Amino acid sequence: MPTTQTLAREDFTSVFRQHPAGVAVITLHDGERPVGFTATSVISVSAEPAIFAFSINNTSSSWPALERAERVTANLLADDQRAVSTTFATSGIDRFAEVEWTQLPNGDPVLAGTASRISGRVLQRIPAGSSHLILVEADTAEVGGKEPLIYRNRAYHQLLEYQI
Amino acid sequence: MPTTQTLAREDFTSVFRQHPAGVAVITLHDGERPVGFTATSVISVSAEPAIFAFSINNTSSSWPALERAERVTANLLADDQRAVSTTFATSGIDRFAEVEWTQLPNGDPVLAGTASRISGRVLQRIPAGSSHLILVEADTAEVGGKEPLIYRNRAYHQLLEYQI
Repeated sequence: MPTTQTLAREDFTSVFRQHPAGVAVITLHDGERPVGFTATSVISVSAEPAIFAFSINNTSSSWPALERAERVTANLLADDQRAVSTTFATSGIDRFAEVEWTQLPNGDPVLAGTASRISGRVLQRIPAGSSHLILVEADTAEVGGKEPLIYRNRAYHQLLEYQI
Repeated sequence: MPTTQTLAREDFTSVFRQHPAGVAVITLHDGERPVGFTATSVISVSAEPAIFAFSINNTSSSWPALERAERVTANLLADDQRAVSTTFATSGIDRFAEVEWTQLPNGDPVLAGTASRISGRVLQRIPAGSSHLILVEADTAEVGGKEPLIYRNRAYHQLLEYQI
């Protein structure tokens, strides 16, 4: 049997730095004000019932709010929203002052101009290493017609469809 | 308070159909033979300790093997591996007969020609609706120099980097 030693941080990040992902901004309301952060880890988990997931580092400034939140929205960014992605990954600024956003009747803060968005109720917060995996049961969604924004290898990308 | 009714399947899938994702093939060994399936849900969860995650539907033909597996590999496909992605999403064929693959000294079956791959020990199988979310503590990885394969809106894509 080989010894199973956990992979070094630099080897792990070099794999996922090369792995492309759609860019999302996770938004929520902490009771006083909107909170949000950029995430590249939003995945579909179950179509029926509708459940999606994403991860958040425990050192994220949004984690204290997310730890208590009942609801969250994944705003899936459009290819012209690179500035929005950067804003929600910048510390020490009023992120919502920099972007267009609105509040749904149920109180969910959502961003304008996205490719799509999906909101729901937090089902589980699963501790995993230095992060949590958040499971969300979706109840509201809106799909626009815009192309998505993609992040890989520290740069933004757009998609080119294969002509087969 | 609004009633929180779970989102209809068609609304949920229309959001995630538009959401781009890198394409992976998850491989494992069930004791007798290699098992594998295509997945577009591989995400980084924690860099230290190194943990990644992916989801699998309970109706997947690979689920009975994955339910018992101690180890799995996420093979992150390269942009010239569209055929590999299709093979591992096709039912009723001998998937491994169609592709180049090898076995690591520890027994892990891995695919050849990928952009990168990362293997490890299954930490948790979390039931979520009609699926499971699988958490893996990584111990082995290899990164190549190939460009990744992307799936969105039922088509394969390659990336075009933004010139900023």
